Amino acid sequence: MTDHPLYQIMHPKSVAIAGASNDFTKMGTIQLLNLLGGKYPGKIYPIHPQETTVLGLQAFPNARELPEPVDLAILTLPTSAVPGVLEDLGVRGVKRAIIISGGFKEVGEKGGELEALIVKIARKYDIRFLGPNCIGVIHPAFHLNPTMYPYLHQPGSVGVASQSGTYVTQIIPLLAKLQIGYSQALSVGNAANLDLVDCLEYLGSDPETKAIAVYIEGIKRPREFIKTSYRVTREKPIVALYVGGTEAGARSAASHTGAISGPDNLYDALLGQSGVLRAYSVEDLYEWAFALASLPLPGGRNMAILTHSGGPASSLADACNRLGLKVPVFSESLQAKIRQLLPATGSYRNPVDLTFFMDMNVLMEKLPRIILADPAIDGLLIHGVQGSSYFRSVGGDSQDLVEYSALRKSEKFFLVRHGVLRAIAKDIWQTGGGLGICGTG
Amino acid sequence: MTDHPLYQIMHPKSVAIAGASNDFTKMGTIQLLNLLGGKYPGKIYPIHPQETTVLGLQAFPNARELPEPVDLAILTLPTSAVPGVLEDLGVRGVKRAIIISGGFKEVGEKGGELEALIVKIARKYDIRFLGPNCIGVIHPAFHLNPTMYPYLHQPGSVGVASQSGTYVTQIIPLLAKLQIGYSQALSVGNAANLDLVDCLEYLGSDPETKAIAVYIEGIKRPREFIKTSYRVTREKPIVALYVGGTEAGARSAASHTGAISGPDNLYDALLGQSGVLRAYSVEDLYEWAFALASLPLPGGRNMAILTHSGGPASSLADACNRLGLKVPVFSESLQAKIRQLLPATGSYRNPVDLTFFMDMNVLMEKLPRIILADPAIDGLLIHGVQGSSYFRSVGGDSQDLVEYSALRKSEKFFLVRHGVLRAIAKDIWQTGGGLGICGTG
Repeated sequence: MTDHPLYQIMHPKSVAIAGASNDFTKMGTIQLLNLLGGKYPGKIYPIHPQETTVLGLQAFPNARELPEPVDLAILTLPTSAVPGVLEDLGVRGVKRAIIISGGFKEVGEKGGELEALIVKIARKYDIRFLGPNCIGVIHPAFHLNPTMYPYLHQPGSVGVASQSGTYVTQIIPLLAKLQIGYSQALSVGNAANLDLVDCLEYLGSDPETKAIAVYIEGIKRPREFIKTSYRVTREKPIVALYVGGTEAGARSAASHTGAISGPDNLYDALLGQSGVLRAYSVEDLYEWAFALASLPLPGGRNMAILTHSGGPASSLADACNRLGLKVPVFSESLQAKIRQLLPATGSYRNPVDLTFFMDMNVLMEKLPRIILADPAIDGLLIHGVQGSSYFRSVGGDSQDLVEYSALRKSEKFFLVRHGVLRAIAKDIWQTGGGLGICGTG
Repeated sequence: MTDHPLYQIMHPKSVAIAGASNDFTKMGTIQLLNLLGGKYPGKIYPIHPQETTVLGLQAFPNARELPEPVDLAILTLPTSAVPGVLEDLGVRGVKRAIIISGGFKEVGEKGGELEALIVKIARKYDIRFLGPNCIGVIHPAFHLNPTMYPYLHQPGSVGVASQSGTYVTQIIPLLAKLQIGYSQALSVGNAANLDLVDCLEYLGSDPETKAIAVYIEGIKRPREFIKTSYRVTREKPIVALYVGGTEAGARSAASHTGAISGPDNLYDALLGQSGVLRAYSVEDLYEWAFALASLPLPGGRNMAILTHSGGPASSLADACNRLGLKVPVFSESLQAKIRQLLPATGSYRNPVDLTFFMDMNVLMEKLPRIILADPAIDGLLIHGVQGSSYFRSVGGDSQDLVEYSALRKSEKFFLVRHGVLRAIAKDIWQTGGGLGICGTG
């Protein structure tokens, strides 16, 4: 695995960057800023024809003059400058690159010729590269983020392979909000050299990656895609969003990454044969991958629903049925166990609805254990854990009218219970049950 | 309209509340806190058998002793105490009530008898009421929020009628995040007296309500529902989420609000005949209602897509086609006008993709005007307006390495442009074009 070209691109000990300067409005500069801001521990060599230092680092006027054949070169240059710099890198013995620059196949015939040229130069020097027209890669645990977007939240276990740079970078604020972390994320752009299949092969072998999200505009090597993803999905789930199956999607894909897309039903069959789960929205792509990376697969389709709100109980039950999951009525003995913990207004047959009930021990500790201990139940959906922001905002200025300590006590209780719930969840996961939590506040 | 019972419930000059005390863990207390915190300007009379003051207000031991026949009474009492208090209210001449207490039809036969009893008492005294087993109502512009959840964001133009209290209250943090404001929101619970049809009738006539979101577990008066919503949807859109059409959804609905739901295809036809748009998730319910309340309907299906990211361009184009919208190639003359504003790497045929391009004037001002001036285009989708948080986070600690003023200037520029964009959007809406904006950061 360490000899995979993408392993080497994702674990460089030294990086050269061509296109960074001291001008904040240039993408290369922003990339170098994020590489520095992310505390990349390796050596960094800016390449710049005029500047002697770039963001405080010694700059080199030409790739041929780099002090070492770096593990990775990043090119964010005007299109026409790319072939020359790539040639220089080849001469210096550099073998791995990311070409961010656009203006190649995606803009038409002339760009296509230029792309053929860089492919040829790469072949001549044995260079394997990502791009052109990509956004780069992010490997949070390795502190490697040479993209134009800062990555500030925790690393995670979702691997990403994408023909869109945006779905690696500009998507980050959404992912941070949802606490979905990358193991590693790769943007392939026009995929002139390394492509989605290479990414699946690599992420399939990465131990930190527990599930893979793939954004597809068109697959270049369908046979290899099927073969690789069929193999990978035996071990870890792959979720894919394919957007090239409609007239407008295909046209946009062609002008975006020069991708040759195919009819939707063809791709549907291709993904199905490969064992890949097909999502139809960007949110689903990441949320499904996150769920699959974080939770064990339930042993069957029998779901329990646990909440203190009747509306969510009903809409979750309805959604489960629509999606082919069952919400079976609990056995008499389980119903009896649950019933004795609920107020008279509660429901206990499945869904369980506590209604308005302040003993959160029951919702968050007792009931999950009782329900998941039943072998007839394969998974549990919890809705409605209220956060402490609720307690801070009730009544506004008028909070002074009640004994403040009661309020603070409740808030503290809820915070503690959140921690307990996480522990239970972990416990349950390890024993193989499925648990999903949706909360408000 | 002012003689509609729901108008009177939503505009009370005086409120009596039975169930509030000085104990923060009681729902009635939380409700009164929120009524006070929301700066309700009318008179408030707590009813409490023991306390002489509740949250600093003079309390009355019995509804018969209220100093005036209040415009609205709110009951958050143990189930068995409800009939007696309702009777007392009737004797005192109170005509409008909200019964929050649960434990009626939704818990079975005995509860059903109790519900029949309160219906009888209400009839005897000409009381019209919402509930039982509901969460109450919110009328932000009137500063009326006697629910258990604080409403802290701006009023808006989405009206809500819901058989679930959660989708009126616990949903608020999500709605606040999306800046979706209520005109008025009503939870009907078991709908023993006033029901969804009454709410549609009332919200249909409310001038502040521009679109209506309805959460349905089961419709009690289908004929009247069709008649009323058919009439209302001639003037304002209604979006509905119906969750009672599956086995588990129906079972949960019965134990939640005692609703008698019906087969999914029947409801599908019923909603279709009524001109009601059917949503299948809670998010869609509110987001669609918000979009319909905020934007004019486009004159046709021809959409333009404008972005600086290729992935969103392609996935938006694909999504449009999937949903029956067209993304036509622009006319030669429109393409020429757009092309001269873009960098060489950009796409200009539709979708428009600026690629990496720092002149936000083009994305946010020039292009929207040019595109929407074309009569062949019915609506515009913009993706990718970057917020100032991006500029604050680029490079982390390493921001000091670039001239800070450049960074701050960019940030300021983006903030200003956000304001400009809102103004353009308003301008375009007034002239009848459709504009959707999705942003990151």
